[in-house]
Amino acid sequence: MSKLDDAAPSPRVPGFRFASIASGIKPNGALDLALAVADRPVAAAAVLTQNMVRAAPVDLVEARVKGGEIGAILVNSGNANAVTGAEGMKAALDTTARVAEALGLKAAQVLPASTGVIGVLLPADRIVEATPRLVAGLSADGLGGFAEAIRTTDRYKKIAQRSFAWGGRTYEVVAVAKGAGMIHPNMATTLGFVFTDAPVELHFLREALRASIEDSFNRITVDGDTSTNDTVVAMASGASGGDQLTGDCEGSALLRAAMLQVLEDVAKAIVADGEGAERIARIEVRGAKSDAEATQIARTIATSPLVKTALHGKDPNWGRILAAAGRAGVRFDPDKADLDIGGQRVLQQGKPVMDAAREAAASAAMAEPEVEIEFTLSEGSGRGWYWACDLGHAYVSLNADYRS
Amino acid sequence: MSKLDDAAPSPRVPGFRFASIASGIKPNGALDLALAVADRPVAAAAVLTQNMVRAAPVDLVEARVKGGEIGAILVNSGNANAVTGAEGMKAALDTTARVAEALGLKAAQVLPASTGVIGVLLPADRIVEATPRLVAGLSADGLGGFAEAIRTTDRYKKIAQRSFAWGGRTYEVVAVAKGAGMIHPNMATTLGFVFTDAPVELHFLREALRASIEDSFNRITVDGDTSTNDTVVAMASGASGGDQLTGDCEGSALLRAAMLQVLEDVAKAIVADGEGAERIARIEVRGAKSDAEATQIARTIATSPLVKTALHGKDPNWGRILAAAGRAGVRFDPDKADLDIGGQRVLQQGKPVMDAAREAAASAAMAEPEVEIEFTLSEGSGRGWYWACDLGHAYVSLNADYRS
Repeated sequence: MSKLDDAAPSPRVPGFRFASIASGIKPNGALDLALAVADRPVAAAAVLTQNMVRAAPVDLVEARVKGGEIGAILVNSGNANAVTGAEGMKAALDTTARVAEALGLKAAQVLPASTGVIGVLLPADRIVEATPRLVAGLSADGLGGFAEAIRTTDRYKKIAQRSFAWGGRTYEVVAVAKGAGMIHPNMATTLGFVFTDAPVELHFLREALRASIEDSFNRITVDGDTSTNDTVVAMASGASGGDQLTGDCEGSALLRAAMLQVLEDVAKAIVADGEGAERIARIEVRGAKSDAEATQIARTIATSPLVKTALHGKDPNWGRILAAAGRAGVRFDPDKADLDIGGQRVLQQGKPVMDAAREAAASAAMAEPEVEIEFTLSEGSGRGWYWACDLGHAYVSLNADYRS
Repeated sequence: MSKLDDAAPSPRVPGFRFASIASGIKPNGALDLALAVADRPVAAAAVLTQNMVRAAPVDLVEARVKGGEIGAILVNSGNANAVTGAEGMKAALDTTARVAEALGLKAAQVLPASTGVIGVLLPADRIVEATPRLVAGLSADGLGGFAEAIRTTDRYKKIAQRSFAWGGRTYEVVAVAKGAGMIHPNMATTLGFVFTDAPVELHFLREALRASIEDSFNRITVDGDTSTNDTVVAMASGASGGDQLTGDCEGSALLRAAMLQVLEDVAKAIVADGEGAERIARIEVRGAKSDAEATQIARTIATSPLVKTALHGKDPNWGRILAAAGRAGVRFDPDKADLDIGGQRVLQQGKPVMDAAREAAASAAMAEPEVEIEFTLSEGSGRGWYWACDLGHAYVSLNADYRS
């Protein structure tokens, strides 16, 4: 289970400071405004929602990140500033302009990100008014508060950290994310932020972020829905010195591996925090004609309500898994398919091989917090996987009552 | 609401007799074996599941219906005879051979259909043993019992009837179906049977069935899952005489319209009977670039768990509908989109226009048994629609506990 320890000390990333406050956007007085600031404008990359309906801050991030150098990210929870028209764009412009002024940056060097209710105008005045207090609170130890302040229906905050050594130096890579519902590729289906003190060349940073997301955020699904606001931003301060990582050296590979690991950690934490989820499953498909076909089958299994309710009921229901695979739109011979649940072979060359002992073992595996489901075909060497959570009563309760 | 009256008298279709018994497949002693017999082998067409994993009876129907003339359909519930290998095929062959023998037909003139648990061998001996009793019960008034015997998790039986007059004669068209979970295109996603006494030429019968399914069974979704057993068969006895309907005359159009109506009736009844469903919604999309794109958007809205839980919560949550439309993989300008819920305009040219009065009216509309959701774009004249049901606690309870 990739649920991260809430009580862990806040990691530091040289070159960055963080702050968080309650600005009054959330009616219950919880933290709702967060700020990440680089000591000077640094290389930044972003991956944004592919939803046709995009919030104002997403449009602004797309425009501003093209410049390549970003000094700060302003994030609010409690309001998505989506489907708010020209007034919503004005709110994003005004609030980031105020933060830029307070930090001595150009407005174009501040990225906005919003998450919460759709269709309600962002109270820009509250954010503008709160900005001096927010900036005053900036601290190298503020990342935990930042992670806390970007939560909406999340049950816990999500932070992951890795270090790597290269050229006699040690670098940090830290990811922070929020998300629990409306989680599905493509695309980045949440808010996520990666901070590193490594010196990363801009084009390689963009490439590494996109590749890492492909194997982390684009492999998870909670309910198949994507949002209007999904944004992942990576910033590299270079504050710990060393030669620029451009993609050619071993240090670049280490940076990329660390970035994938932290993004996979928070992506798994998002699935585990899926609204009402009690466990997660890794759906691995092997032996397909191509990786794309394997991934397509894994995604179809991972999004099947019948599979997800069986996961909730701790039922090793191979029939539902097989039927979901069969409707993935991929041709395969079901009589040459094997299925393993929790390491237990339940289907061998298309035939059920469940006996009482295997049934008991598979049921026990389904009750674990993390369940491994492996579906093996005989069509080729294509491989793909997906992370899914179960579908339980709490999901229905949360989403039938909560206006998102 | 298309829930049909359980107590209605059993419709008759000249040229057909029906029977149903409890053969012991279902452990609770409920009706589980049904038979439809034409007075003589008649024109028959079938549309079958597109799932890669197909039950033995589906393979047999595909092979046998090519002959064009069918005398009987043998249906069992309680066991899908799917993923049962060569033994499963032998069970389908043996049981239909026994029925053919009892009726004086060739085995190739009897179609099998099975629905129920996957991966358990069909108890062919019980069906073979019960066949004399089943055949002895054949009656022109047996259609109600037939509809009852093909149920699995269905809360009620599904029968629809239309008549049309042509050439001085009146013809009956009757559809019977079962289905409540694992319902989704493509394809026929359930068991369904159409019987008519009209004289229908074989090729036109095939074409009419395929076209009618496109606008009925292929427009419904309960949980996005399709089954290994989905089969719809149409049989035309011609018992009421008249000129053959070949697709060219007005009578052919009347037959086709009646077939679409009965299939749409039972398809809507399946959605309304969606496992745990309390209401259904018609998602209509207009103004897309093409019918295919409109249908794609409608399907994405109809299968969104967030939209379906909002429907359960009677919440006119336009943000979720808009976000689902936005991830359908279809390009459109969200700033030129209108959305109406229950006839209430909630989004006008991409902007929310919800006030207290509209909110109350839209909420009231969401509480009706049938909710109309209309999403209108400005891209062209493409139109498509889908029927969906809500996603509630009862769905989770049924599917987390029931081994399907």
